[in-house]
Amino acid sequence: MSTAGKVIKCKAAVLWQLNKPFSIEEVEVAPPKAHEVRIKIVATGLCGTEMKMLARTDLPGLYPIILGHEGAGIVESVGGGVNTVKPGDKVIILFLPQCGECSSCLNSGENYCIKLKQSKTALMSDGTSRFTCKGKSVKQFAATSTFTEYTVVREDSIAKIDASAPLEKVCLISCGFSTGFGAAINTAKVTPGSTCAVFGLGGVGLSVIMGCKAAGAARIIGVDINKDKFKKAEEVGATECISPQDFKKPIQEVLFDMTGAGVEFCFEVIGNPDTVAAAVASCNESHGVCVIVGLMSATDQVRIHGNLFFSGRTLKGSVFGGWKSREHVPKLVSDYIEKKFNLEPLITHTLNLDKINEASELMKTGKCIRCVLLP
Amino acid sequence: MSTAGKVIKCKAAVLWQLNKPFSIEEVEVAPPKAHEVRIKIVATGLCGTEMKMLARTDLPGLYPIILGHEGAGIVESVGGGVNTVKPGDKVIILFLPQCGECSSCLNSGENYCIKLKQSKTALMSDGTSRFTCKGKSVKQFAATSTFTEYTVVREDSIAKIDASAPLEKVCLISCGFSTGFGAAINTAKVTPGSTCAVFGLGGVGLSVIMGCKAAGAARIIGVDINKDKFKKAEEVGATECISPQDFKKPIQEVLFDMTGAGVEFCFEVIGNPDTVAAAVASCNESHGVCVIVGLMSATDQVRIHGNLFFSGRTLKGSVFGGWKSREHVPKLVSDYIEKKFNLEPLITHTLNLDKINEASELMKTGKCIRCVLLP
Repeated sequence: MSTAGKVIKCKAAVLWQLNKPFSIEEVEVAPPKAHEVRIKIVATGLCGTEMKMLARTDLPGLYPIILGHEGAGIVESVGGGVNTVKPGDKVIILFLPQCGECSSCLNSGENYCIKLKQSKTALMSDGTSRFTCKGKSVKQFAATSTFTEYTVVREDSIAKIDASAPLEKVCLISCGFSTGFGAAINTAKVTPGSTCAVFGLGGVGLSVIMGCKAAGAARIIGVDINKDKFKKAEEVGATECISPQDFKKPIQEVLFDMTGAGVEFCFEVIGNPDTVAAAVASCNESHGVCVIVGLMSATDQVRIHGNLFFSGRTLKGSVFGGWKSREHVPKLVSDYIEKKFNLEPLITHTLNLDKINEASELMKTGKCIRCVLLP
Repeated sequence: MSTAGKVIKCKAAVLWQLNKPFSIEEVEVAPPKAHEVRIKIVATGLCGTEMKMLARTDLPGLYPIILGHEGAGIVESVGGGVNTVKPGDKVIILFLPQCGECSSCLNSGENYCIKLKQSKTALMSDGTSRFTCKGKSVKQFAATSTFTEYTVVREDSIAKIDASAPLEKVCLISCGFSTGFGAAINTAKVTPGSTCAVFGLGGVGLSVIMGCKAAGAARIIGVDINKDKFKKAEEVGATECISPQDFKKPIQEVLFDMTGAGVEFCFEVIGNPDTVAAAVASCNESHGVCVIVGLMSATDQVRIHGNLFFSGRTLKGSVFGGWKSREHVPKLVSDYIEKKFNLEPLITHTLNLDKINEASELMKTGKCIRCVLLP
């Protein structure tokens, strides 16, 4: 019997308060309102952003909340006015919407849809949530929430994808892979034969390496203090890897020693203001481009010597790798199906959603790249 | 009788020590060595960089020195191996050399010639100076020195220009005009119909405005705390001007209120780290580009909230407006002769070199844009 129009009771990982583990609970998921879609989540990645959310002390009003924004699933039902997807469609959930109407959506060169800003309250557009648990409203992270069997998102925050796509793999296109790969291809516009450095070799960092390689970079230097990540980085395209802890000199001097004139494209995929400063300083003085991919907190200040810019360096930000989400994600999924890139090296663990605290521990201790959770 | 090969005694403005006025002295100018050229200076601008040099306390070994790097003159004699200019040629002096051999010179997209770095000792390439005064060697600022009747510079630091060029005007192409105009045209690549803001309305800032206008910007907002500069800014192309002191809000919020979505191109032409941070924050979140044109000191740190970059802003530096000096300066001079742009609005004062302390005072008190000095 169809569940459309009815409240669905299902399992979800609820975070009741700061510094507590996820709690697997039965939650109620309301039917989608107008321009919304209810989705059965098939696979969801545990992104570094969630790990940062777990440690944020500046948002006391955020709880209870269902985290998760990197997900793929199947449309269960649609609200009024929805006409781009129907029940049974495979979709990827988009933390970055594409409303199609704001100035960013109307400008071909950018992707920061105004609706993303409006999602920052961790509620749907009408200021409410579609989740309740034990009689309490539960917030929706990034107006998505994927650590659940079912969720409700806006129509502008999903991309319909090829029916043959393996959701337990392409869920990474929902955030991590696209963010890194696109930062190299779209934001930095890495050039053939160039020298690149990537600071931070997690799932997004590895995706940056894949983007640099796809763009034809001749030399890709991976940088991380966790040497266990070097093998995988070299597997996806790094030509060499170094740990700052192996050198007495600052890493920017090490990179100048290694390259002669600094790197041409440098990516900070950690979200640490000090590493951003080092990444800028590691760039070629004249034409070096540094892209900040890592997410920094609202209070983080980057401190950079002003004279680093005198000679012509560039520092830029990137969200979702510069891709327009609804428009480009289906194409990325097709490219994956056509084996234009691999997602397998990024997925080191696949666990049932019940094991989310175990997955979280694997991330914290640097023992996994991406853990895909199956609700 | 020719002076070639002989020491020339002439007048120069010597700075003997920090916090002292310029002193007009008789100096000795040695003949040019191999690959050097001795030039009779006809006109030299007093650039903001000199004003900053007068206040620098971190270079105790810099004195005595002859400042000045924005100059135009006539070749008096040439050293061995010089074959691109001959006595009598009109030339513009270039603080940014174009050696033609370093990686920047060989790369079409950049201009930071490695020889500029090697000029930072305020001496010629062989570690000596061509100036003496009262038996003491006198340093050469930026390996140029133009506050003098004669100077010696390397062949790679001069551009031969059209014989009909009025040197008392085109001397500004030696630094200020090109730096500002090019920052808009080459570095920011201002687009037709765009909205721009220029922080700092001195000679370089006005040249940025001229560049924005030439590139077809629809709206150019001048920002300065000295309202006396507004009239001139509007004369050269600013569509409106504001003073941060007239608002209680931070200037970035004022600019967002004025434009709705921030400015598309923002130029910092002051060299103040706090203004750089405000300029970045004034940019459109998604595609705004901020260019640092103002010269910061080696110890200045720019502090920018990391999340300003998340949505896609770009911050970049620019030296000499991105022009390749020897290659582009003759073309800029021809463009001036063909009336493609005006230099006249920038030149508010023309004084004899003897009056350099008066000129310096006019700059300090914001009463002049550019003062051209005639030795």
